[in-house]
Amino acid sequence: MIDLRSDNTLGCSPEILESLTRASRGAVASYGNDPITERLRERCRTIFETELDIIPVATGTAANSLALAAMSPPWGGIFCHADAHIQRDELGAPEFFTGGAKIIPIDGESGKLHVDALKRSIEEYGSSGRMLVPAALSLTQATEAGTTYSVNELRELSELAHAENMLVHVDGARFANAFAAQSRSLADFSWRSGIDVLVFGATKNGAMASELLVIFRRDLTDGLTRRLHRSGHRFSKMRFLSAQLDSYLENDLWLRNARQANEAAGTLAHGLSELGIEILRPVQANIVFARLDPATSSRLSSSGVSFYDWPLFGDGAVRMVTGWNTEPKDIQRVIGLAATE
Amino acid sequence: MIDLRSDNTLGCSPEILESLTRASRGAVASYGNDPITERLRERCRTIFETELDIIPVATGTAANSLALAAMSPPWGGIFCHADAHIQRDELGAPEFFTGGAKIIPIDGESGKLHVDALKRSIEEYGSSGRMLVPAALSLTQATEAGTTYSVNELRELSELAHAENMLVHVDGARFANAFAAQSRSLADFSWRSGIDVLVFGATKNGAMASELLVIFRRDLTDGLTRRLHRSGHRFSKMRFLSAQLDSYLENDLWLRNARQANEAAGTLAHGLSELGIEILRPVQANIVFARLDPATSSRLSSSGVSFYDWPLFGDGAVRMVTGWNTEPKDIQRVIGLAATE
Amino acid sequence: MIDLRSDNTLGCSPEILESLTRASRGAVASYGNDPITERLRERCRTIFETELDIIPVATGTAANSLALAAMSPPWGGIFCHADAHIQRDELGAPEFFTGGAKIIPIDGESGKLHVDALKRSIEEYGSSGRMLVPAALSLTQATEAGTTYSVNELRELSELAHAENMLVHVDGARFANAFAAQSRSLADFSWRSGIDVLVFGATKNGAMASELLVIFRRDLTDGLTRRLHRSGHRFSKMRFLSAQLDSYLENDLWLRNARQANEAAGTLAHGLSELGIEILRPVQANIVFARLDPATSSRLSSSGVSFYDWPLFGDGAVRMVTGWNTEPKDIQRVIGLAATE
Amino acid sequence: MIDLRSDNTLGCSPEILESLTRASRGAVASYGNDPITERLRERCRTIFETELDIIPVATGTAANSLALAAMSPPWGGIFCHADAHIQRDELGAPEFFTGGAKIIPIDGESGKLHVDALKRSIEEYGSSGRMLVPAALSLTQATEAGTTYSVNELRELSELAHAENMLVHVDGARFANAFAAQSRSLADFSWRSGIDVLVFGATKNGAMASELLVIFRRDLTDGLTRRLHRSGHRFSKMRFLSAQLDSYLENDLWLRNARQANEAAGTLAHGLSELGIEILRPVQANIVFARLDPATSSRLSSSGVSFYDWPLFGDGAVRMVTGWNTEPKDIQRVIGLAATE
Repeated sequence: MIDLRSDNTLGCSPEILESLTRASRGAVASYGNDPITERLRERCRTIFETELDIIPVATGTAANSLALAAMSPPWGGIFCHADAHIQRDELGAPEFFTGGAKIIPIDGESGKLHVDALKRSIEEYGSSGRMLVPAALSLTQATEAGTTYSVNELRELSELAHAENMLVHVDGARFANAFAAQSRSLADFSWRSGIDVLVFGATKNGAMASELLVIFRRDLTDGLTRRLHRSGHRFSKMRFLSAQLDSYLENDLWLRNARQANEAAGTLAHGLSELGIEILRPVQANIVFARLDPATSSRLSSSGVSFYDWPLFGDGAVRMVTGWNTEPKDIQRVIGLAATE
Repeated sequence: MIDLRSDNTLGCSPEILESLTRASRGAVASYGNDPITERLRERCRTIFETELDIIPVATGTAANSLALAAMSPPWGGIFCHADAHIQRDELGAPEFFTGGAKIIPIDGESGKLHVDALKRSIEEYGSSGRMLVPAALSLTQATEAGTTYSVNELRELSELAHAENMLVHVDGARFANAFAAQSRSLADFSWRSGIDVLVFGATKNGAMASELLVIFRRDLTDGLTRRLHRSGHRFSKMRFLSAQLDSYLENDLWLRNARQANEAAGTLAHGLSELGIEILRPVQANIVFARLDPATSSRLSSSGVSFYDWPLFGDGAVRMVTGWNTEPKDIQRVIGLAATE
Repeated sequence: MIDLRSDNTLGCSPEILESLTRASRGAVASYGNDPITERLRERCRTIFETELDIIPVATGTAANSLALAAMSPPWGGIFCHADAHIQRDELGAPEFFTGGAKIIPIDGESGKLHVDALKRSIEEYGSSGRMLVPAALSLTQATEAGTTYSVNELRELSELAHAENMLVHVDGARFANAFAAQSRSLADFSWRSGIDVLVFGATKNGAMASELLVIFRRDLTDGLTRRLHRSGHRFSKMRFLSAQLDSYLENDLWLRNARQANEAAGTLAHGLSELGIEILRPVQANIVFARLDPATSSRLSSSGVSFYDWPLFGDGAVRMVTGWNTEPKDIQRVIGLAATE
Repeated sequence: MIDLRSDNTLGCSPEILESLTRASRGAVASYGNDPITERLRERCRTIFETELDIIPVATGTAANSLALAAMSPPWGGIFCHADAHIQRDELGAPEFFTGGAKIIPIDGESGKLHVDALKRSIEEYGSSGRMLVPAALSLTQATEAGTTYSVNELRELSELAHAENMLVHVDGARFANAFAAQSRSLADFSWRSGIDVLVFGATKNGAMASELLVIFRRDLTDGLTRRLHRSGHRFSKMRFLSAQLDSYLENDLWLRNARQANEAAGTLAHGLSELGIEILRPVQANIVFARLDPATSSRLSSSGVSFYDWPLFGDGAVRMVTGWNTEPKDIQRVIGLAATE
């Protein structure tokens, strides 16, 4: 069985399981007033090289929605790529948390939002004052199409957003994969590029269930904490969220996991491409979109390789997602199966 | 250090940690379509002796609010004891999830709601149709005062609620403790007593972060599942919630943990009482409310026994909560310190 | 037929009907950018002797909820008397508009909130930070019991509220009646007493359907205007709301109407009292609560006097409300009927 | 001054003003239990030839949002044309009333939604169950582009919607104008074409502020009534809404007004077209979109003809809206001014 359906079908890194076991010892204050959460906060201040606040949350949907609710009034507009998770996969969570803000989906090549399209969209929808008040820009990093924004692209988009009095959110469910794909610092890749709140994902990259809200605009923290509580996302035994994230950030586990996933995706894309299989999007993180003929597709499936059809990207399109524990030999096996006739 | 502040300051049962480690093996379908969640469902059908649906949730606040939102329209009234967690400790979570339903707090001795008071309250607030439409009764089992409802009391309250077209929710953050204190079956203690949705708590009784929505009114399940998703409470790696609950219910871990906590509380109350210390509420689960003189209180504190002052119950009132791993020797030490002069 | 059920069963002052007819002439800009609305704003600045913003709204429930939503975050607490309209008669409108804020009802003699009770309530419910964050004080002027707050009482309550970082709202559905009962200026009776937003009622006092949001804390105006729009309360032909209010404030129509109602109530209470009928609340505005024996009650009803039983105030209690066009001879007839045996 | 900005800049029909004056006589029960509202209900049952419920509402935004909230759960999807008022002009009102449902805007020629595009959209957005559950189809009749749906088109769209378990809403702010443009019965044009709730507009067609919710799916009425109350849209003196609507429907005032507006628009479009001015959309109701050169545009403006630029429809596009009291001589004057060089 080789599972390429999603990075959320995989288990949990051994280092994180061990951290949870260690964290279980002894009684500590609840609701985040524990030493593990405090250590995590300090660790983040160090690696991001700035003052910031953090909130550990169990799911990405919650983290995104909490952030957006802190950034947008109920009459706000949230601009994002048309394929964004907040638009297509969260069953209206941002609308629920914000009290009915409007999400404006914008088309863009390779899953990325382009600054001109954003500008046009803000103008079209925000100028009358009767549809929405532009409030937030939400970027997905890495994108749902497996591509990434460069620091320059982030800056250009953020500058436009800030000039329009909007705040900038990053849905970083695969932030580690995006980060591992380039060579800038965490600071450059986040607040120095104008990001106001980052959802630093861990679940898809080896954690059990934890995402970290990294808040650079600290005036948002109080409201975020209130919403956390009243949406049922404030863990009483918060140490168990923090322990996952603490070990995730320790000794670069997050980067090692992301690199393993990215390399597997790179190898897979390269291998399939050499077989003449069309790769449908640039492979910059841990997702490969390819066009398979029906015979190849069913040969893979019947040999125990699981993945999703992705009709959104055209006939025969499939999505293959590698993960923190995808092994090179599994990728070679997938390529071998694709090559067989 | 002896921590009696709350049962949420304690760690996680070793059995549950082991279950999580086992659950981490291999790739499985996400969002609850995994074999562990399926096994948990079957286990519940067996022990509750009926058809039912389950939804694993990470926190009690979320579980309560999801249940209430499925039970009450935005213009509904939710009746509960004045000290209920949903009223006093969730920062408006039920209001948020329901879209603004009204919670009606009702006073009642020993933390319990009495049927006559409920009747009067429904009549006073529900009859004009201009304040609310009675929608749900929410009971806390064990109560915030450490007392429990008997099967007869549950039935009487449920019958009234159902006669008024209301549904019945149980906040069972300490359901195990309440259950361990009596000798009826799970079925008797839940659906046969008219409970429509039970929040079967595990976090406070040895889990890391998991509560089980046990849904006896299965027509509520579809709406609950939608709300779960859009409130960010649907775990992608749901197996890690289910694994906690599965081991919790296996081999009666939940009952063993609850009994240890209850016995510790019983011993503590008995010991303090023998010293002439006033016990302020009947001790039927794992919470002891006592009135301490300032000297005793500070002697305990300075000797490493931590607990909360509870001014709601009068001058000198304190709350001591025992838990799944409270040891008899610790209780003896607390009693010994209280006895010293 | 003498209708004493409520001041909302009566028709519309002729002056207001004429104003509507005049306002209908010609085409004007919609959504409040018309000369009548502008004139109304200027009129208010003059009579209240201060800078302020206004928003005409069609109903009191809308005006109250809009104000409270501008004053309270979703996790806020709104403190009011237990009999307040916002708590008992609006089917959760404040909860809907605020996104789930909590209303805290407080008992108080003669329908009035007392400062000590308010202080205790804020402390009890607001101090843990887990139930609510105190956000707004809502006073009803005149109260649902037909009593009024003096300038001194208003100041004392407002000072406490402001000291707790709360804002002060007045539900003035019967503000004119309260005002007519005393001898202070509008400024004294509103912003100089610490009122931040006043709902200046007109519907019950001779208008067709219009209430005026008078906003002294002008930083609230932008949010209020947005909420007005998205709750469907922003009239396209706003001139027709403004025209009602403009003629209401012109030549003291509002005061003349209120005085007629108040005098009728005073005469009624005096007359009934002289017959030995118990008057249950101080009669300070246009509402009389009396205890009628069954024979008197049914004699009045069968003679065409309509009013409501008011069991909330005890056995035999009835409520009689006089209005802007209640005539002295009608009151004499009611007293005469009550006297007959 | 000739005002062609919008049909909401005009005043109120004399017949309606007289009806309001008559309605003001005497005391009647409040909140809709009055004889005028009852008469209106009966009148509607007659002219629509079916059982139905009605709710008079003051604004179109409120009427639309109330209807949609009754039709869609918070996780529902509401499909409409991209230019629909509910999407572009209500500042998120439908999102507010529904608790965060998603509006899916769909492009379509001449402001109309086409059945194939609707089908594709439902499939694309509704099939995963992770974005929304298709809940309602909202049609605008006449459309924002001044075009109308035929009975056949309505039926085809409704059939698709119902087959997908969706309900059908009509935003009929200009329903009278659409109706006047064809020759079918009211029944054919509404429930016999599958409409479940119709917002029968009056404000733009000569009323002061009133729209009628005509509810053919009567199981929606109870929820609608609750939402009406808690959104502050239930008028205490409801007779004054009903009186507007009653006289509107009496003696075909609504049709006479609509015909006058439609004829003016037809004449205007014809006259401009003969001058070689491009008419940008089919003129089927009371709106004309034309492309004016800058000289003509400013000549009209400086001569006292007011209208809006409409850049959404291209360079030089303007919108001219005629109304219930637009006079033929005014239209001739506009054409004359446009002809002058």
